[in-house]
Amino acid sequence: MRLNEIGERKLTYFITEKFGIPFDDAAFIEWDGEYIVATTDMVGRKTHFPHSATFFQMGWYAMAVNMSDLAAKGAEPFAYLVAISMPADLEEKNYRELMRGMEECTKKYGGRIVGGDTKEADDIIIAVTALGKVKAGREMRRLGARAGDAVYVTGSIGKGGAALLDEDTEKLLMIEPRIKEGRILSLSGAITSCMDLSDGLASSLHQLAFINKVGFRIYEDALPVDYTARKHKNWLELALYYGGDYELLFTASQNIKDIERRIDAKRIGEVIEERKVVLVKDGKEYEIENRGYEHFVGNK
Amino acid sequence: MRLNEIGERKLTYFITEKFGIPFDDAAFIEWDGEYIVATTDMVGRKTHFPHSATFFQMGWYAMAVNMSDLAAKGAEPFAYLVAISMPADLEEKNYRELMRGMEECTKKYGGRIVGGDTKEADDIIIAVTALGKVKAGREMRRLGARAGDAVYVTGSIGKGGAALLDEDTEKLLMIEPRIKEGRILSLSGAITSCMDLSDGLASSLHQLAFINKVGFRIYEDALPVDYTARKHKNWLELALYYGGDYELLFTASQNIKDIERRIDAKRIGEVIEERKVVLVKDGKEYEIENRGYEHFVGNK
Repeated sequence: MRLNEIGERKLTYFITEKFGIPFDDAAFIEWDGEYIVATTDMVGRKTHFPHSATFFQMGWYAMAVNMSDLAAKGAEPFAYLVAISMPADLEEKNYRELMRGMEECTKKYGGRIVGGDTKEADDIIIAVTALGKVKAGREMRRLGARAGDAVYVTGSIGKGGAALLDEDTEKLLMIEPRIKEGRILSLSGAITSCMDLSDGLASSLHQLAFINKVGFRIYEDALPVDYTARKHKNWLELALYYGGDYELLFTASQNIKDIERRIDAKRIGEVIEERKVVLVKDGKEYEIENRGYEHFVGNK
Repeated sequence: MRLNEIGERKLTYFITEKFGIPFDDAAFIEWDGEYIVATTDMVGRKTHFPHSATFFQMGWYAMAVNMSDLAAKGAEPFAYLVAISMPADLEEKNYRELMRGMEECTKKYGGRIVGGDTKEADDIIIAVTALGKVKAGREMRRLGARAGDAVYVTGSIGKGGAALLDEDTEKLLMIEPRIKEGRILSLSGAITSCMDLSDGLASSLHQLAFINKVGFRIYEDALPVDYTARKHKNWLELALYYGGDYELLFTASQNIKDIERRIDAKRIGEVIEERKVVLVKDGKEYEIENRGYEHFVGNK
């Protein structure tokens, strides 16, 4: 069987299965009552970036997607390692711009680049490893959602998809990882599960449903759809299936009204016992399909 | 200016300069009286592996080169993150063999894979991040060698070069990182500087000379040249300039006879004040040139 018949998510599950890693895109390593949260994400020019992307934007994005994974765990970033492969005929000034993009992102969201490696290859491939920390017991995981919990998202959704359709490279790549929001949520102790929305709301809900053996009921009129997505006829498609939003999707067992006052988050539905993922629209339930962007198999 | 006019080492120095990282290929992050040692190394099929390389060997090598960096710091490996880009038409069994190579390497040398990412790209690119720990004060660094120190290498040298010429893929890729030796050296407290020999003895000596503002006098008849290299007419060239040996090069201020009994290490020369790197052969001094394998500029 070839990899394009399998898909990225399942391939990554092969790694997690093989090495007994729980269903998370970051690792928790215990260390004196704290967790070191470690995550790695690889991006390539050909597969992740439009032609119009600047080197600064590529650097920022490569860093920010890793931070978003830390944000979803409630971790505070402290260090990054950066491995970059590049063609030998790349202009030095472009390489410096790439690094400046990374640097600016760490200045804004915390942590510092502590090591790196550069190698020669046909395409630009950037692998960032991000390390964060969080007090043991305060970390957020994908596992933990229970029927009856309320479901929330931070910020607005559909903007990643809109940026793609609008060819707005700036909006597509200069993403803002929810580090601050993740910290506040984590310290609240009220969050039962969390993940970021890089894969899109639909896919993320299905992943949480699978991991937690639960279902989700989401209310269409509660979705905080971004104004840039609203301009498109297929705004619901953008909000559910396009991904690239890098917001946090989380569940909470208690009333978190006080948190809602401190961060920009909106309640969009509830965790249900029945293992289905549905959207309530005009009083009727519609199935939210398990699809979204995935490498190897493309956008299916 | 294009990257091929600059060279990998200088490019990586750009990162270390920009972010104020000391002259080391691994980062030391302080954490409660210990250091987390973090390092990342990226390898690509096209640039690092001969056509005859098996997927198992590629996985092993990608992991082992990172371990070698930890070994040079005296760190004990505890966790790895693995990011892999692969073509979509790769056979699944090859992917599994790649992972099995990584796994076997961690079983032998310690630590475990805690996270991963897979992406689609034209070539196989593997970025491993390795995390180790070492008590603060016991870590080994590149900075610290002083005139009068003795210079040592572990194991034997020239075998990487010989494996390349002999097209012995097994010997070339199934390298054995000196984790155990690094731990013993680090705990001895007698080591003033250390690095691994991935770039070759000549290049490594020049790097240590530059960082420590010292010189080196090396004795040809003391070099532990591997028997596979001795078979070649240009065995001295292999031992000095070819690299790929992944042994430890270290300096010690005290007599370390007791350590020499515990690990396979040989004294090859001394640190000198004068900033030159020379080989003593038949009572005469010859300059050891500053060359070795480097990406972007090729083998110059």
